Amino acid sequence: MSQPTAIALDAMGGDHAPAMVIAGAALAAKRHPSLQFHIYGDEGKLRPLVARHAALESAKLYHTTEIIPDDMKPSVALRQGKRSSMRMAIDAVKEGAAQGVVSAGNTGALMAISKFVLGLLPGIDRPAITSLLPTMPGRCVVLDLGANLECGPDNLVQFAIMGALIARVELGLEEPRIALLNIGSEEMKGHDEIRTAAAILRDTPAPGRFIGYVEADEVQLGRADVVVTDGFTGNIALKTLEGTARLAAGFLRQALQSSLSARLGALLAGGALARLRQRIDPRAYNGAMLVGLQGVCVKSHGGTDARGFANAIGVAAQLVEGALNPRIHAEFARLYGVPGGPGVAALTDMS
Amino acid sequence: MSQPTAIALDAMGGDHAPAMVIAGAALAAKRHPSLQFHIYGDEGKLRPLVARHAALESAKLYHTTEIIPDDMKPSVALRQGKRSSMRMAIDAVKEGAAQGVVSAGNTGALMAISKFVLGLLPGIDRPAITSLLPTMPGRCVVLDLGANLECGPDNLVQFAIMGALIARVELGLEEPRIALLNIGSEEMKGHDEIRTAAAILRDTPAPGRFIGYVEADEVQLGRADVVVTDGFTGNIALKTLEGTARLAAGFLRQALQSSLSARLGALLAGGALARLRQRIDPRAYNGAMLVGLQGVCVKSHGGTDARGFANAIGVAAQLVEGALNPRIHAEFARLYGVPGGPGVAALTDMS
Repeated sequence: MSQPTAIALDAMGGDHAPAMVIAGAALAAKRHPSLQFHIYGDEGKLRPLVARHAALESAKLYHTTEIIPDDMKPSVALRQGKRSSMRMAIDAVKEGAAQGVVSAGNTGALMAISKFVLGLLPGIDRPAITSLLPTMPGRCVVLDLGANLECGPDNLVQFAIMGALIARVELGLEEPRIALLNIGSEEMKGHDEIRTAAAILRDTPAPGRFIGYVEADEVQLGRADVVVTDGFTGNIALKTLEGTARLAAGFLRQALQSSLSARLGALLAGGALARLRQRIDPRAYNGAMLVGLQGVCVKSHGGTDARGFANAIGVAAQLVEGALNPRIHAEFARLYGVPGGPGVAALTDMS
Repeated sequence: MSQPTAIALDAMGGDHAPAMVIAGAALAAKRHPSLQFHIYGDEGKLRPLVARHAALESAKLYHTTEIIPDDMKPSVALRQGKRSSMRMAIDAVKEGAAQGVVSAGNTGALMAISKFVLGLLPGIDRPAITSLLPTMPGRCVVLDLGANLECGPDNLVQFAIMGALIARVELGLEEPRIALLNIGSEEMKGHDEIRTAAAILRDTPAPGRFIGYVEADEVQLGRADVVVTDGFTGNIALKTLEGTARLAAGFLRQALQSSLSARLGALLAGGALARLRQRIDPRAYNGAMLVGLQGVCVKSHGGTDARGFANAIGVAAQLVEGALNPRIHAEFARLYGVPGGPGVAALTDMS
């Protein structure tokens, strides 16, 4: 990419903002020198933080003291947060000053505002939250992780197509294996929505290979590259994964402190255990994508640190530089004849 | 208990049946000397297996060569499997020869046949599958794990009450904390069914304390003793837990083999790691209860071994000896005025 990629940052969202956001941006700037940052927040607080990092020399600051609190309802945030750091960062994408936005703030507000401001891509009825989750052989794209409580078959099919394109951009897989999350592999199992979505996907020349259903314990085995589900189920699966990983880590910690020889063993295996921690470090998986919008929007975990936030910025940069949205637009045009090329997509609102 | 507890065993269900079933029964007989077994299956195969174990001297064998295959549809199993080992074991409970049945066979068939043969307890509209899942501080009861794809508010409330009584019997908790699994703690989140169930539970003097919603990552922290959800969501959560636990174990195994010092460390920590494996051993959690039926019915994992099957038998024995079904009957009578005492319950069908 010769053009620099501009990313707008909500500097005031997240438990440890704004220090964590600025440190994360500096880390990301070192990893991706082509990035340019537009940073929204309290300039009095931001300027001394930014001044510490040479990598942020070219970053632009935009002052506002308004913040959307974590407990504010999305509808209220939408009405009252027009001068908030989150809203201004999203507006920057709408106005073309940036191609992507990253926030560690209020998830519901971020979804509501970005959907309202950016609008949906042509052919998409609802946006989805997605993330790359760890599997035995690598990673897989799972969506929706919580944007939509209930999803019809059409939503699931749209998620499948978007998910496959994300797998192409983020995982480099040309023909990702697409599956619907279900509780059994038999035809008779699962909700009507899932069965209908399966029937549609079998007849859709999606950008990948539809392999049918996967059960939740097959996901971590790497049976599929794209796992599609409704937002309620996806959120339950995500949180169960997080909770179980913490439980396993806690059990391991207790075991390795349970005797002198265990403590000695843990000391000897220290390097390997540190690499294990790194491998399952939630910060490495930080950065949930809101897909289906006319603009790249990434949600960072609110409790993350600079390293996690830098990773979320990396996800946004990869989606922009990998041209996810033009790909989604072109794919839906190919499949369903949505008019206009990728260039026109930004101007068309068929939602 | 002065009366021996009689348990009917489907000797022909499960990947390693009948050898695994007989070895499991022998193990269970040693642990619970008060148990008496009625064993259903191919006598020619069973007799030499039983003869190996002095603990099974008093076991009674009932001959049949019919087996319900794992891939048989429940409706077909119900019609065609009348002389199958599974059906005969369930019939034994109906006829009063046994108080509980354990099978490692076809889950769908076991649910359909036991529901048809045993019938529902008064006040229960649908049975649920439940199990004790590991948490940081101990265990919790989670239901439904897959018997009902969709559940109305009344089903969820019934599951909550039954789950609380299971927590009393299995975990010894007089006032278990009951929670509904949801994707957020705010009132506005979650399906209508969940919100309505929460409203009902707030007004129900259930045998425990209703604490509202829990998210899936709070379950493993031990936030609740009874976690209530529909069968689709519960099955996704259970399978995600299983898959993530296997993923964590796989990552740990790889890490501990990644270098010489790691291998040495693993050797030194060997005892502690063995205890860890024991703590998360799926066999120790084996034995899913089908609750809400007029009889105790426990489903063992199909792939388990003798130790796992013995554990499933232990679960059945505990439900019988802890008088779960009379407790459910009495509780629903207390809450909703279902007529008749526990003694009459077996004769009353108000489903």
